[in-house]
Amino acid sequence: MGSSVPRRRFLQAAAAAVWVPTSVKGFTPDDLDPMTQDDVLQADVSKWELDTPALLVDLDAMESNLARMQSVVSSNGIASRPHAKTHKCPQVARLQIQSGSVGICTAKVSEAEVMLEHGIENVLMTTSNVTPFKIERAMGLRRWHSGFVQATDTPENARDLSDAAVAAGVTADVVVDVDPGGRRTGITPGRPALELAQLVDTLPGLRLAGMLCYDGGSQHVAGFAARRTQTLERLAPAVETCESMRRAGLNTEIFSGGGTGTYNIDHENAGLTDIQVGSYVFMDAQYLAIGGESDDEVYSDFQPSLTILTTVLNSQYEGRATTDAGAKSCTINRPWPIVKGETGMSYTSGSDEFGSLRYEDPSRIYRTGDKLELIVSHCDPVVNLYDRMYAVRGDRVEAIWRIAARGMSA
Amino acid sequence: MGSSVPRRRFLQAAAAAVWVPTSVKGFTPDDLDPMTQDDVLQADVSKWELDTPALLVDLDAMESNLARMQSVVSSNGIASRPHAKTHKCPQVARLQIQSGSVGICTAKVSEAEVMLEHGIENVLMTTSNVTPFKIERAMGLRRWHSGFVQATDTPENARDLSDAAVAAGVTADVVVDVDPGGRRTGITPGRPALELAQLVDTLPGLRLAGMLCYDGGSQHVAGFAARRTQTLERLAPAVETCESMRRAGLNTEIFSGGGTGTYNIDHENAGLTDIQVGSYVFMDAQYLAIGGESDDEVYSDFQPSLTILTTVLNSQYEGRATTDAGAKSCTINRPWPIVKGETGMSYTSGSDEFGSLRYEDPSRIYRTGDKLELIVSHCDPVVNLYDRMYAVRGDRVEAIWRIAARGMSA
Repeated sequence: MGSSVPRRRFLQAAAAAVWVPTSVKGFTPDDLDPMTQDDVLQADVSKWELDTPALLVDLDAMESNLARMQSVVSSNGIASRPHAKTHKCPQVARLQIQSGSVGICTAKVSEAEVMLEHGIENVLMTTSNVTPFKIERAMGLRRWHSGFVQATDTPENARDLSDAAVAAGVTADVVVDVDPGGRRTGITPGRPALELAQLVDTLPGLRLAGMLCYDGGSQHVAGFAARRTQTLERLAPAVETCESMRRAGLNTEIFSGGGTGTYNIDHENAGLTDIQVGSYVFMDAQYLAIGGESDDEVYSDFQPSLTILTTVLNSQYEGRATTDAGAKSCTINRPWPIVKGETGMSYTSGSDEFGSLRYEDPSRIYRTGDKLELIVSHCDPVVNLYDRMYAVRGDRVEAIWRIAARGMSA
Repeated sequence: MGSSVPRRRFLQAAAAAVWVPTSVKGFTPDDLDPMTQDDVLQADVSKWELDTPALLVDLDAMESNLARMQSVVSSNGIASRPHAKTHKCPQVARLQIQSGSVGICTAKVSEAEVMLEHGIENVLMTTSNVTPFKIERAMGLRRWHSGFVQATDTPENARDLSDAAVAAGVTADVVVDVDPGGRRTGITPGRPALELAQLVDTLPGLRLAGMLCYDGGSQHVAGFAARRTQTLERLAPAVETCESMRRAGLNTEIFSGGGTGTYNIDHENAGLTDIQVGSYVFMDAQYLAIGGESDDEVYSDFQPSLTILTTVLNSQYEGRATTDAGAKSCTINRPWPIVKGETGMSYTSGSDEFGSLRYEDPSRIYRTGDKLELIVSHCDPVVNLYDRMYAVRGDRVEAIWRIAARGMSA
């Protein structure tokens, strides 16, 4: 993954002009962390003035990604329901809804709590809640938020949900989570899934809202054709399940699936209503490497908008420099972060505290105190390391957004 | 690293009785996060009742580690100055000081701010501050905290520090950071380091407090003999530098180095005063695998005290189970987390949201809703994912400690 040639080509392509679909509101007090001083936005702050390591989101690139996704799903007759596990940031969720998404997804009940508290009304939690404590929290959410939908993948769990809903005096909206073959989460498609849907439909505390089938294992398959073949094959049993649910008179208003890697393939699954795309909003080195429909080498459908600003701490040894962004700022996911705008150097973040810059054919040498920008390796876990992100347009910091669901893994 | 045999032997060994050197005070309001409700400690809470994923520290094991470290460094005529980058937790730093450590280290100025604010008086920042913003923050710390010492590794930086100290009206205590050969941070030992020490000694805003040389590259070398040979060889030029500083009449009251992997070797370096041990307090799968002086297979000098509590979300597929602790709760460091008390199964956390349990020769099968405990892969970046840790004795939760410097990478 990630040889230097596609990176170079990508970085050239990233200079193209973008269409800005909506004005960005800027931060609100609710998005700020009241515990620290440095959230107060000053006028005309350049990103290069920020203390580092800092997480930046390029607004032009992100808005281009939002517009592109909306345009493609609309023309394919489906919708997007972006996964907030990627950004954990209410302000990004708000922009997704404004751009046309029908709601968002969350992986954890604590993420759902944060998003609903911040005014995001339609939240589909894609993981089953299995303990009494979490089920009680989920029902507490449902009591106040009619747009909260949760997943279930066993008859036992559906009964537990129904009992808790009855006890809480609510009717909980539930989708059946169907396994695409990874045997990780979800129930087996076909009869087991159909019977679970029928059970949900009859339980007193629940309302069947449809199903979901997330094919995570296909999202990073390299090459568009191979990715398409694999995901359509893996989704086929779920498509049949959806059809049998429909024939049985069950509600299939939601059939959610897909992801950033298959966003322009997923509509081929009959009955699928929306896609749980996450990374498209930020992109990362992992997705750049998978190739796209029109570009085999670089997945250039979306622009990398998420970067890490870092400072050189030591430049006294030849052929290299040490920066302040290591594994605690970048994770150790591969491919390693890409130095933005530089093709003749590589970056590694294997050390906890320090990044390592090595020169091959550098256009310039970075000196102690210099700053550089990194395209992230894998956006989801990187975002989860930071409490806030700086929203920048060009070099100017336009807003500071709190990553309010950071660390919400429970 | 990490074959199942040493793991099994380790887990048996971990059952041995431990000496408890000090009573643990429990949490104080200052250690709690005022933004959330769930920090309020209830009486007689079992760790098995905690919502998951949760980070736990076993007090008996941690206290045993503190006592062991203090006993060994004392008998070797040196001191410990534990690195707070590992725990980022003021309460753990307090216990280290209570157990006899002469101070703590931090990697970042933001970590130093947190520790000093929480009453830890002696803080050595081991990374150079190179930007005007960070240098100003460091001088602000020095104004109020006489026990704050910072590192420098170039003459230019020493002059910048001195200018900022003079401007702030303080005399800043500085140690020279000497490179053990990794060419990552620190100045070259010998004449360059000596001249830098002499410069620091003459600059008006600075007071030379000694030197440091952190041999990070030797800490995880497998096998005690190989580790000893390598680190003594790599430290030799720093030892000579220290001696030449002493002969030149310079202050060498601090010569800090070492780490958890070499804690019982570092005193062989003449002039070394204290060791920057970090992981010993928690241990992890990475350190278990390096072997010790008395045990070639398992590094059993210290006990793993840090674990992640996780819940099984899906157990409907044979030979495996899916849990709620993936990469965002465990990192993707190798070796993978070890399931505590279980030898016939393996755990992977490569997926962002989900952990994967695979059975080989299981003593039991975990069912949906069951909880299990994981010995962490690499303690430093794991701690950095959580806002708090639960301090447990046996099964009982004794305190909740805020990881106040979590995310402080700047």
